[in-house]
Amino acid sequence: MSDGKTGLQLRSLLKKSGELELSLVSIVTPEPAEDEVVVRVEATPINPSDLGLVIGPADMSTAKVSGSKESPVVTAKMPEAVMRMMAARLDQSLPVGNEGAGTVIRTGSSDVAKGVMGKTVSVIGGAMYSQYRTMNVKDVMELPAGTTAADGASWFVNPLTALSMTETMRRENHKALVHTAAASNLGQMLNKVCIKDGIDLVNIVRSKEQADILHKIGAKYVVDSTAAGFMDDLTNALAETGATIAFDAIGGGKLAGQILTGMEIAANKTAKVYSRYGSSVHKQVYIYGGLDTRPTELNRAFGMAWGIGGWLLFPFLMKIGPAEGQRLRQRVVDELKTTFASHYTQVVSLQEALQLDHIAVYGKRATGEKYLINPNKA
Amino acid sequence: MSDGKTGLQLRSLLKKSGELELSLVSIVTPEPAEDEVVVRVEATPINPSDLGLVIGPADMSTAKVSGSKESPVVTAKMPEAVMRMMAARLDQSLPVGNEGAGTVIRTGSSDVAKGVMGKTVSVIGGAMYSQYRTMNVKDVMELPAGTTAADGASWFVNPLTALSMTETMRRENHKALVHTAAASNLGQMLNKVCIKDGIDLVNIVRSKEQADILHKIGAKYVVDSTAAGFMDDLTNALAETGATIAFDAIGGGKLAGQILTGMEIAANKTAKVYSRYGSSVHKQVYIYGGLDTRPTELNRAFGMAWGIGGWLLFPFLMKIGPAEGQRLRQRVVDELKTTFASHYTQVVSLQEALQLDHIAVYGKRATGEKYLINPNKA
Repeated sequence: MSDGKTGLQLRSLLKKSGELELSLVSIVTPEPAEDEVVVRVEATPINPSDLGLVIGPADMSTAKVSGSKESPVVTAKMPEAVMRMMAARLDQSLPVGNEGAGTVIRTGSSDVAKGVMGKTVSVIGGAMYSQYRTMNVKDVMELPAGTTAADGASWFVNPLTALSMTETMRRENHKALVHTAAASNLGQMLNKVCIKDGIDLVNIVRSKEQADILHKIGAKYVVDSTAAGFMDDLTNALAETGATIAFDAIGGGKLAGQILTGMEIAANKTAKVYSRYGSSVHKQVYIYGGLDTRPTELNRAFGMAWGIGGWLLFPFLMKIGPAEGQRLRQRVVDELKTTFASHYTQVVSLQEALQLDHIAVYGKRATGEKYLINPNKA
Repeated sequence: MSDGKTGLQLRSLLKKSGELELSLVSIVTPEPAEDEVVVRVEATPINPSDLGLVIGPADMSTAKVSGSKESPVVTAKMPEAVMRMMAARLDQSLPVGNEGAGTVIRTGSSDVAKGVMGKTVSVIGGAMYSQYRTMNVKDVMELPAGTTAADGASWFVNPLTALSMTETMRRENHKALVHTAAASNLGQMLNKVCIKDGIDLVNIVRSKEQADILHKIGAKYVVDSTAAGFMDDLTNALAETGATIAFDAIGGGKLAGQILTGMEIAANKTAKVYSRYGSSVHKQVYIYGGLDTRPTELNRAFGMAWGIGGWLLFPFLMKIGPAEGQRLRQRVVDELKTTFASHYTQVVSLQEALQLDHIAVYGKRATGEKYLINPNKA
């Protein structure tokens, strides 16, 4: 086994010419400072949020692979239309991968750093598609005995997002919530959190198959936006649960506005007096994804007490501060094999992650297909 | 002069049949309780916010007048398409008129009530299109010597809205603001407040004539959304002022999204690192009107740190509480003849307010045409 003094790292480079290049570079592992540790990365998931940076909106039908088997290079064309939005990343070779897990193989001199020597740890902090990562010890989390790196790889993005959604709900004084694209890996996790915590969750899906997935894990409120009675089904679920906050991964089209309209109708079912400004109940939709890239269309038939906005995990964690964040992280680690368990359909090396047949599968971002990279796979 | 034991009151009644009926009814003036006073109403403006309840979206081309000259009755047809939104007000005879001013002619037994006997006062609290109003003394505000009821009639809705906009800006940590339909009576007032308080204000107007009105009162940043270079002009003004909050009276179409896009471009001019989630600067648009009734269309090309929502004066005043509200009211009264001066093109009686030729004028809600009702006009 390598001493970890150097290691491979996956890079994404978008050239001014519009060519996207994915490659592996060999980098020297920085020696750990006092409070730092070197982690041998053994498991790091490919999340939709990672793909946004690795591939983004590149046209992967134009993808070609060159280089050697040990050091493949993938190139693909970025559509002209999106290049303007990419100005700030042009000609920079960017490391990628948000989260992962592995073994601490070297530490700095502080007691807290030395305390995790040899331990299996989960890690957050970017550039995880690397064989070795030198991290501040505060960004690693020791895993309980019997927990593997694969168990702990997806410990941050989806679990913390699910917990932060229910946390946002509480902090903004709502009592139940709505989630769209609800059969996703994240959506299933959110159902498990809500069932465990006794929170009513209205799941909006786009097919009967997705509804079935959620019913099978115990979801009570599942409405299908492609069904004829969608608005009635949605409004009934909103009235029954009293949900007045939604997290929306779709973004485009009329869905966000339909959710607000349903909430307003539900609120007015119990209103006592006429107000031409509509119900005084505040209705909120947070858009955290853009599966539908069309414009968001709001008919504003939902009174004046409403808000829509962007929502991201990291700014939310900044807002609640490190102590609260630590509480959420600890819950994830405690429930890694239950509430927050992830299932992977493939485990690949860094080189395999750059094979076109694999890219074709994980690049689809399909529900039920989830890849794990092991950068130190033998 | 009447003893004020009974008086006329303007009512708006929408029947299930879809007929809107405006009429005058004679009501007994409630005797004042301990902390109450009876105000003889001498001046009450017709604001856009009043018209929303008096006329709403009724088709005034179908308006007819019947009844006597002393007691006219106006009827008009409410379009079928909007009747569904009106369910909660059907078949209720609603009093109207948000604000006004007049003379206290009778009081309850408390010292604070007796203290305003005979005084000219401004009043807030609805049903102001009445000859007499019995009010809690906390909803009347004594006017300084030399201030007439006409001077004090529009003391609440527009002045408090303008002050609450700059107050919202400060409370939500923005340093400059944007206003649309900016040549309105409210918009001109907001310019006066901002100039006095040294706040940068980006005015968005829809014609050269409107731009001229604002330049004439000293506005520095005025951009015309009908001009060819609008987006560039807007973005430059946003970059120069650092405005990251907007109050939008238009509502429909692309304008709210264009404002957010301009703010994002302005923010990125000073950004140091690439983030595919866009700038971390929070950008906010509050929609407080709906001059454009089309759907709001957001292309979401402005990162993830953004919000849009409904905004209303009264919930804001509830939020800041009575002490802060009182501070704002006092400022209005102190500057009634300067910053918050209103100009009226007509002063009409309650009967005249129901004449079709007058309705045709004030019903247009045109900039520069403002009516005042004197319910006790001889």
